[in-house]
Amino acid sequence: MSQLSELYEAPYYAVIFTSILDGKDSEGYEKMAKKMVDLASQQRGFLGMDSARADIGITVSYWKDLNSVSEWKRNIEHTEAQKFGKSVWYKNYKIRVCRVERQYGF
Amino acid sequence: MSQLSELYEAPYYAVIFTSILDGKDSEGYEKMAKKMVDLASQQRGFLGMDSARADIGITVSYWKDLNSVSEWKRNIEHTEAQKFGKSVWYKNYKIRVCRVERQYGF
Repeated sequence: MSQLSELYEAPYYAVIFTSILDGKDSEGYEKMAKKMVDLASQQRGFLGMDSARADIGITVSYWKDLNSVSEWKRNIEHTEAQKFGKSVWYKNYKIRVCRVERQYGF
Repeated sequence: MSQLSELYEAPYYAVIFTSILDGKDSEGYEKMAKKMVDLASQQRGFLGMDSARADIGITVSYWKDLNSVSEWKRNIEHTEAQKFGKSVWYKNYKIRVCRVERQYGF
């Protein structure tokens, strides 16, 4: 069953990754995407992740602090995936690193 | 054709809305969702919006400042939609108000 990420103790950081796929090598893409979720969740400071894809894809990952965001960005396998992403899988992507300041839910 | 929202001049604010639908009154929900996009885009300080729904829904709206986020939250028609959302359309939702600090794309 699908679940939403919890509201973690603020302040923390959200990395908003929006993307449009190119449609090439979708099998390779799926494999990489799965691996990156596994890898990210093992990183220091990782809190959780929400993800949805329709016409565009949005993945929001949540992190304890800016340092853990930077460490994830520099992770060697992740760096490789970023290179392939630019050259093969993505037509376009944007990344926003944000500080969560207020939150509510029901 | 689908497009991603631009990277606006930082700092600005992102409101991350994650949700799980209840499956009730999906026609009413679609109508409301469309109307809210129209309404939001007319609000002072609105910059853009990205949206995707698969198992969960993620909508990220971008705003010039915290004041415009608060004004949108208090918009009368939006307040009505929030009430209906809790009682009818959504099983669960979470809202995070975030300050965009860094961004990059290609």
